[in-house]
Amino acid sequence: MNLRAFLLAAFVAALPAAHAAPQTIDELLEASPPGDWRPLDPRDTLYLELPAGRVVIELAPAFAPHAVDAIRKLVQRGYFDGAGFMRAQDNYVVQWGRDENDPKAKEQAAVKLAAEFDRPLAGMPPFTRLADPDTYAPEVGFAGGFPVARDTARKLAWLAHCYGMVGVGRDNATDSGNGSELYAVIGQSPRNLDRNVTLVGRVVQGMELLSVLPRGPAPMGFYAKTDQWLPIRKVIVAADLPPPLRQSLEALRTDSATFAKVVENRRDRKEAWYANPVGHIGVCNVPLPVRPRGR
Amino acid sequence: MNLRAFLLAAFVAALPAAHAAPQTIDELLEASPPGDWRPLDPRDTLYLELPAGRVVIELAPAFAPHAVDAIRKLVQRGYFDGAGFMRAQDNYVVQWGRDENDPKAKEQAAVKLAAEFDRPLAGMPPFTRLADPDTYAPEVGFAGGFPVARDTARKLAWLAHCYGMVGVGRDNATDSGNGSELYAVIGQSPRNLDRNVTLVGRVVQGMELLSVLPRGPAPMGFYAKTDQWLPIRKVIVAADLPPPLRQSLEALRTDSATFAKVVENRRDRKEAWYANPVGHIGVCNVPLPVRPRGR
Repeated sequence: MNLRAFLLAAFVAALPAAHAAPQTIDELLEASPPGDWRPLDPRDTLYLELPAGRVVIELAPAFAPHAVDAIRKLVQRGYFDGAGFMRAQDNYVVQWGRDENDPKAKEQAAVKLAAEFDRPLAGMPPFTRLADPDTYAPEVGFAGGFPVARDTARKLAWLAHCYGMVGVGRDNATDSGNGSELYAVIGQSPRNLDRNVTLVGRVVQGMELLSVLPRGPAPMGFYAKTDQWLPIRKVIVAADLPPPLRQSLEALRTDSATFAKVVENRRDRKEAWYANPVGHIGVCNVPLPVRPRGR
Repeated sequence: MNLRAFLLAAFVAALPAAHAAPQTIDELLEASPPGDWRPLDPRDTLYLELPAGRVVIELAPAFAPHAVDAIRKLVQRGYFDGAGFMRAQDNYVVQWGRDENDPKAKEQAAVKLAAEFDRPLAGMPPFTRLADPDTYAPEVGFAGGFPVARDTARKLAWLAHCYGMVGVGRDNATDSGNGSELYAVIGQSPRNLDRNVTLVGRVVQGMELLSVLPRGPAPMGFYAKTDQWLPIRKVIVAADLPPPLRQSLEALRTDSATFAKVVENRRDRKEAWYANPVGHIGVCNVPLPVRPRGR
C-alpha cells in the first residue's frame, strides 16, 4: 500500500515476463487479442469540456434508448453549453444542468420522458454473470460494457449504480427526468437507486475531474449560489466532430475471454502483498478497461 | 434528485410532524432517546488539522488495540505534525505520512507491529447483523459503531473497508505496517482489502476534505513530488487537549433501537420519490450518525 511497496511492484513489473502467465491487469490487457476490444461508438460518446479538462461518457442505448436519444439531442442543440454543476454531495453524486430560472431550463422543465428503469432480457447484449452473491439483486454481472443486475424470474435487467455511472435526475414523477439534469456517482455505490432512476451510461475518462468537486454546503450537497457552480464550457457528441478531432477509444468487451480473466484476477488476488485473498468480487469492484485505440 | 425535488422535500420536512411516525433519518435521530448515543472517547479521537479544516477520526481499539496504541503514541510525539498526503487514487484511497527520506520516517521504517487483520468473536462489542447477503463475507453488520464482517465458523470478526474507513499502510510483510502511514477509503468499498490490512477506525467528520484531494498523476495516485503533498499541520489526540478545547461528539450506538430503525429506513425507502424501493441494504450503505453532544 505504501510508496516502498509501490516501488517494489514497479520493479517486479519491469522484469522480463519470459514464459510467465500474465499476473496483473496491465499484463492481461497487453496480452489480449484485438478482437476482445470494441471501439466506442462516436454517436454514444459525449465529451464534457470543463475548465480542468475533458470528461468522456459512454452512453448506454441498449438500456435507455429514449433517454440517450433525448440527451444526444439536448447536447446537439447546445443545452449544456454554459451549464454547470449545481451539486456535489460527498459519497454520493455530482449533478449538472442549468439553473431552474434559466429560460432554457424553464422551457425544458415541462418535457416528459417515460422512465427506463429496466429492460427485458430478450435482446440484451450478452450477460457475463458474477459468481458471488449480491446484496441488492438476484444476479449481477456485465452486459455491453456496463455493470448490470438481472432478475430471470421477472425477465428484467437494469444498469447498476456503480462508481462513475451516469443517470437522469428527476422529481417525484417518474417521467419528470427528461435528460436535462444528469448526475454521476462519486462514492459507495448507491444501489438503492437501482430501478428508481434511468441510468444512461458511465464516465470512461476524466472521472477524477468530477470526484474532486468541492462538496456543496447546502443540504444534499447543493451549492448555495449559482456563481459557485463549476461551469461546463461545452458538451459534444463525438460523432459531431470531424473524425480527426475525435478521441479514438476502445473498451474491453465484457463478454470476452480477457474480461473473464480480469474478473478472476480481481476475485483471487495473486500479488504477494495479499496475505488473505478474499476469493470474491462485487459488481462495482471490477474494472472496465477503456484505452486509446491502435496501441 | 434535483433542486425542485430537494425543495419539495425541505418543505415537507418543515411541516409539523404531529402524530406521524418519524420517516426520515433526521426525524428518527430527533426522536431518539439520549441513551441510544455514546460519547466518543477522547483517547480514541484524533484531530487532523489540515489547511482546509479539521478531520476527526474515531479509532477502534476493540479491533486493533496495538495499532491504535502505536498510532496514539506516534501522534503524541508529533510524528504527523508537518507530515502530508502523498497519495490520492481515484475511487480508492488517500494516504498520509512522512516522506521516506525524512529522518523520522527512516527511524520509524524499522519498527514492526503484528497485524490485527481480525479478532475473536469472544468479547467483541454487540453485533447488529444485517439481513441481506454480502458479496465478501458470511455475515455483515455493525459492532461498536463500525461496519464489521463476521465468520461464526471461524469465530472471527473484522472491520469492513467501507467509505471513510482508516487503515494502516504496509509493505508485503504483514508486520511492516506500524501506523506511520495511514489511508482512508474515498471510493467504492475495496472489500478485497478486508483481512489484508489492519483497519484502525473511521473518519467521523471532515471526510469531504479528504475526498476532494486532487488525484496524484503517478501510478496508484502518488504525487510525483513532495511539494505536491497536501500538508498536515498537526494531529492531536482529543484527550491531550483541555476539555473545553475538545469537540464534544456523540455517535449513535449501533446496538440501539434507533439504529435498527435507521437500518430499516435505508432498507425500505418510504419517501414518495422511490418508485421501486429495493428492500435491501449493504453494510457500506448504512449511515453511522455522529453529532455534537448536548443537542
